[in-house]
Amino acid sequence: MQIKASKHRPRIVIVGAGFGGLWAARRLARFPVDVILIDKNNYHTFFPILYQIAAAEVEPEEIVYPVRSIVRKLPGVRFIMAEVEQVNLAGRSLKAGGIEIPYDYLVLAIGSVSNFFGVPGAEEYAFPLKTMEDGISLRNHILCCFERAFMEPDAARRRQELTFTIVGGGPTGLEFAGALSELIRGPLKKDYPGIDFSEARVVLVEAKDSILPELPEQLRTYALERLRRMGVEVRLGAAVSRVSAAAVDFSDGSVIRTETVVWTSGVRADPAIRSWGLPQAAGGRVAVLPTLQSPGHPNVYVVGDLAYCEQNGRALPMIAPVAIQQGEAAAKNIAEQIAGRDPAPFLYRERGIMVTIGRNGGAAFLFGRPFTGFPAWLIWLFVHITNLIGFRNRLFVLIDWAWDYFFFERAVRLILPSERNCDPPG
Amino acid sequence: MQIKASKHRPRIVIVGAGFGGLWAARRLARFPVDVILIDKNNYHTFFPILYQIAAAEVEPEEIVYPVRSIVRKLPGVRFIMAEVEQVNLAGRSLKAGGIEIPYDYLVLAIGSVSNFFGVPGAEEYAFPLKTMEDGISLRNHILCCFERAFMEPDAARRRQELTFTIVGGGPTGLEFAGALSELIRGPLKKDYPGIDFSEARVVLVEAKDSILPELPEQLRTYALERLRRMGVEVRLGAAVSRVSAAAVDFSDGSVIRTETVVWTSGVRADPAIRSWGLPQAAGGRVAVLPTLQSPGHPNVYVVGDLAYCEQNGRALPMIAPVAIQQGEAAAKNIAEQIAGRDPAPFLYRERGIMVTIGRNGGAAFLFGRPFTGFPAWLIWLFVHITNLIGFRNRLFVLIDWAWDYFFFERAVRLILPSERNCDPPG
Repeated sequence: MQIKASKHRPRIVIVGAGFGGLWAARRLARFPVDVILIDKNNYHTFFPILYQIAAAEVEPEEIVYPVRSIVRKLPGVRFIMAEVEQVNLAGRSLKAGGIEIPYDYLVLAIGSVSNFFGVPGAEEYAFPLKTMEDGISLRNHILCCFERAFMEPDAARRRQELTFTIVGGGPTGLEFAGALSELIRGPLKKDYPGIDFSEARVVLVEAKDSILPELPEQLRTYALERLRRMGVEVRLGAAVSRVSAAAVDFSDGSVIRTETVVWTSGVRADPAIRSWGLPQAAGGRVAVLPTLQSPGHPNVYVVGDLAYCEQNGRALPMIAPVAIQQGEAAAKNIAEQIAGRDPAPFLYRERGIMVTIGRNGGAAFLFGRPFTGFPAWLIWLFVHITNLIGFRNRLFVLIDWAWDYFFFERAVRLILPSERNCDPPG
Repeated sequence: MQIKASKHRPRIVIVGAGFGGLWAARRLARFPVDVILIDKNNYHTFFPILYQIAAAEVEPEEIVYPVRSIVRKLPGVRFIMAEVEQVNLAGRSLKAGGIEIPYDYLVLAIGSVSNFFGVPGAEEYAFPLKTMEDGISLRNHILCCFERAFMEPDAARRRQELTFTIVGGGPTGLEFAGALSELIRGPLKKDYPGIDFSEARVVLVEAKDSILPELPEQLRTYALERLRRMGVEVRLGAAVSRVSAAAVDFSDGSVIRTETVVWTSGVRADPAIRSWGLPQAAGGRVAVLPTLQSPGHPNVYVVGDLAYCEQNGRALPMIAPVAIQQGEAAAKNIAEQIAGRDPAPFLYRERGIMVTIGRNGGAAFLFGRPFTGFPAWLIWLFVHITNLIGFRNRLFVLIDWAWDYFFFERAVRLILPSERNCDPPG
């Protein structure tokens, strides 16, 4: 592969093949430029339903897509699977996979990691839900808890194995709580005839006094009632002070005995950014100009979760729609710069927010209007299926969802090799 | 879970949920007995197309099936996911998952592992194809070879990365060679535009002078020609003397520079059997009476790859149809014993043998008649689809095969977490 800078076409290097980086590459493919897209994985992950891997609702392969399959349809775009080792902003080059890659423009889109806010034991014992690996690990762990409980003679120990605690009352926490509750009350109940399912608990804890603060009151109330009707215990105003192998402690002194703590309560910029010489703002993110350029580096763009960008006095949220729009905006701005024109400020167009909570349940706020129940669930379904990449992935996810919907049966519930060992923790 | 022996029903413990153990459990569910099925995995693997995981043709989840989903439909059968730690033949009990489990009858069906025949370096560097994990590891490795070759400036090194060597001219070796060749010449050629595919080689090596010794001459010749037409190099009479990270050496002094050696040339009984107090015959297998009972232990049955059993003066092959028929026969014999009758000798009914070699290609010997080409391929397809467990698995595998057939496109080609690191070996 020829990596030297071309004399004829401007070279744009994009780091990260998530929503921000991939959409930037797609847009840049329309222009006569040379694009190199770099990611440490050979696949793009559809984050919004990542939690469904953990709930044995979909298979990992159904919501990730090989980057090379996308890139081969984009003229002028090449893909390198590698970790970026060094960025030399002054010299306009970076090092990845041991190779020096010069660039004219750089788009940084490496995303975010879980933010444990320094809670003792959280990083060690809590399960994050940020990558495909996280989803597989958590699924393995949940199924292993049931395998152990199936054999466990001690009642206290068994209850602890069957208590699943989810930290964070945002969309991911809620959707996962609903999906997990349905997994347990449906397929797992049929799979483990020896287990007393009154011992199994799903607990959703949130430090603030409300779930889903972005939604209007009416929708928050609906979601809370819906979760409780599904058998999810919701604890508001419960700040986690410590996580260990078999418990979670709260700052009010209360304790939940649990071997599963799922951490959905926050994200921060990928710490890989630290050594790349760009100043960091809140959450480790890189503060950008309204044009998404890095201050002082007009040829460096930062997009997605990595970018700290305010609009109407508020920081833009770290979600897929922002990343997609920023990726496209950065691409357009680079094309403008190449054409000798000024880059334009980025303006986020918010389309709405929606969550699904179990079968036929959902809450959505779209075009300024609230939706609940079956209509919200149907909108959620439609939006997520159409946004998946690849016809085969859409088909397989749809079949899996239909299976679950009509037969109350999850596709597969394998304990995959990576953590086949179901030995108890600690 | 209540594990103590029941006073009312005879207890049968089955170790292994492969073809032998699972079919024994299915048959025993028809009788008023208490069956405990034990396996270290929570899924049953459909071995005959395991190699298709490695060739990115099907996803791992499509050819394995959760044992609990099968067992919940079988009255009187319970499943324990655990490793067997001890077998006490005299005391009629075993220990698994830390729990003592008494039995009246025992069925051992733990299967086989790869046999490297003591070839230096083979166990360390060659890729076996016996478990789902093996399939995933090999797929990861093959895709990583292409990722490295894509970036490799040194031509000799690149050719070594792009040379794939398959040891063993049996059905698995042949079918994998065909599937790998089609993966490389089709989807991977589109994925890696920078690679010169004349540098990519698939080499099938066999120590004997012929491939597929079980088949008639006409079919062997067809298979050989078909492989060669597909671009697979076939080396007969080539005995491997050593495997290392970057080469395979032959006893005639020749060497192939290759970073991928796939070992399909033989199996031996799972060595876990060694400490269980049963005498071992050739290949570490347990010699059984014609009734499949262990000599001296009339309540212990051994079935599948683990059993050494002769018929017409020849040892029965270690293949799925033998295991299935033996599992069912052992179950029937146990029922006879419980009813106070004598167990009957096992008689293997051979139905035929078949292989598929790439698109529209195959060789089959069924009911004493040879088939080649499209008819053989169609028979192979039909037999394998109908033998998969679970409607969803059949549907998904069929979709994947159709995708490949009509679009020359493999479903997914992910480098999964377990070995994401594509760093070069050694």
